[in-house]
Amino acid sequence: MEQKKTSKRLRCIVKLGELSLFRGAAITCKNKLETIDEENLKEVSSQIRQAFVPESTSANVIGMDWSKRSGQSEVPTFINDLCDQPVADSESFIVVHGAGSFGHFQASKSGVHKGGLSRPLVKAGFVATRISVTSLNLEIVRSLAREGIPSIGMSPFSCGWSTCQRNMTEADISMVIKAIDAGFIPVLHGDAVLDTLQECTILSGDMIIRHLAAELKPEFVVFLVSNTSLDVLGVYDRPPVEPGAVLIREIAVREDGSWSVVKPKLEDTSKPVEFTVAAHDTTGGMVTKITEAAMIAKLGIDVYITKAGTDHSVKALSGFLKGGIPDDWLGTAIRYMS
Amino acid sequence: MEQKKTSKRLRCIVKLGELSLFRGAAITCKNKLETIDEENLKEVSSQIRQAFVPESTSANVIGMDWSKRSGQSEVPTFINDLCDQPVADSESFIVVHGAGSFGHFQASKSGVHKGGLSRPLVKAGFVATRISVTSLNLEIVRSLAREGIPSIGMSPFSCGWSTCQRNMTEADISMVIKAIDAGFIPVLHGDAVLDTLQECTILSGDMIIRHLAAELKPEFVVFLVSNTSLDVLGVYDRPPVEPGAVLIREIAVREDGSWSVVKPKLEDTSKPVEFTVAAHDTTGGMVTKITEAAMIAKLGIDVYITKAGTDHSVKALSGFLKGGIPDDWLGTAIRYMS
Repeated sequence: MEQKKTSKRLRCIVKLGELSLFRGAAITCKNKLETIDEENLKEVSSQIRQAFVPESTSANVIGMDWSKRSGQSEVPTFINDLCDQPVADSESFIVVHGAGSFGHFQASKSGVHKGGLSRPLVKAGFVATRISVTSLNLEIVRSLAREGIPSIGMSPFSCGWSTCQRNMTEADISMVIKAIDAGFIPVLHGDAVLDTLQECTILSGDMIIRHLAAELKPEFVVFLVSNTSLDVLGVYDRPPVEPGAVLIREIAVREDGSWSVVKPKLEDTSKPVEFTVAAHDTTGGMVTKITEAAMIAKLGIDVYITKAGTDHSVKALSGFLKGGIPDDWLGTAIRYMS
Repeated sequence: MEQKKTSKRLRCIVKLGELSLFRGAAITCKNKLETIDEENLKEVSSQIRQAFVPESTSANVIGMDWSKRSGQSEVPTFINDLCDQPVADSESFIVVHGAGSFGHFQASKSGVHKGGLSRPLVKAGFVATRISVTSLNLEIVRSLAREGIPSIGMSPFSCGWSTCQRNMTEADISMVIKAIDAGFIPVLHGDAVLDTLQECTILSGDMIIRHLAAELKPEFVVFLVSNTSLDVLGVYDRPPVEPGAVLIREIAVREDGSWSVVKPKLEDTSKPVEFTVAAHDTTGGMVTKITEAAMIAKLGIDVYITKAGTDHSVKALSGFLKGGIPDDWLGTAIRYMS
């Protein structure tokens, strides 16, 4: 019999980056190919540690990236002190990240999402995309590990996940469950995968989150957004670069998956909310993604979209919002309303 | 029904590095923590291309690493020319590498192979080991991709492989088969994995090769050895640093898995061949590894151990030796003799 659930309830799924729909990306410098915003990533990792390893402090962190390249000395000296140190218990959670400036270029240039591995461009693009997204995955795993989070990179392709006409069909999460039960934090990512109908496609981070949320029923899901050049706090009623863009504070999701803005009351409710799609977003546009979030909320799982590295993201990650959304919290909450 | 075989016969499994038993490592600079011998890796990748993509030349290679960091320009210009280019057909093969200077330090320092995830040192070491070996995997995948080999990194941990008291129990190779059937070259590596009895351990590259060889029956297996400071060509009758060390040219394996040297005739056959174990080799010593090779040969699969980047490795990779071992070939052939 296959184990279907984690032995303790999953606290949270955290999404990092790939939020081109919000014109921002939590981790990567979106407009610069394959560049990581190191400072932002470090801050995000630190907030994640504080939220899920409550007993930890920056002083007693057990660094788990012992690589030479992390800027540490050749042989970390602190390792000898580890033997007697108690492990600060971590709540169980999963991190999922998209591609950001990693992988999107390779995927969109070659059309991996459209399939057709017999075409040399697609085949080469598939390989190039995987190289790029696994590079990013490694950097995120390392950043979390430096904060003492026992993070484990897991590629959907290697996990054996594939799609059928771009829908997730074969996605056995037993290995994710085993990793969690062993006390690790799985770090998954949007990936190039095989597709039974069109040979290959791109599996987005959002699709992964929806699948994991449906299977593992976390208490809540947090999407961390950020944009260093633009103060994006969540979802807006129009592109946030436009003057007068209003932050949507709350979206209510109905049983059929349809959704509507409940806070603030928009002046012109007849006018649909405008959404933009970045040209290099190969994994679907704004409506697709809000719909993904709504499908999670429909399961009774709150989804919070908020700016990384702020007091608002601290509140979202800590689960504080489960009791109700305070007026001074800035971000977008997407919740089921029966 | 699960698919158990690749649709075309697997030509070869190539092992790179981790050959501390031979006092050399094909890819990494063994004595320098986490350092890749770039030049050697490039040469090895090029030889692998020539052996398995026979129609390819260095002029018509389709580079599949489009990362910024590969030293190419921000946006590779050749991509636009790819559309009409035919794909040179690759024979199906698998690359497996060990840790070399990557991972061994982390694993041995923390005792991951001995298990016990409740100990902070082991848990941190598990994470650190995986970070280190996946870094090396990424570099090897990129090097092969730059040679136009459609390489796909696959971590045993993510593949869901685990052990029971350090023996491979759950190692579903269906994803490896799917990758091969889709025309990709899986690149696997020694990894930290979960163990049902002792919680965790190290799964060595050699154990992976044995498992894959038993399941997929490749035509032959090649272990590429190299050592820049020492001219190691294969297995010797004593540590190759010692004066008078003789290269063992051929080992015969019997049906029960026992083995003996058949060429050259050693002067003192009563004296056992001496083997050394590097202090930081956490995955077993020389005898274990020869035994692993013998268990492959026992299946009727030739195993060739030879120096990377030489005419001898070209001959081994090309399958030329299947017809018989010429006298001028330098290396160690381990073959079944009924």
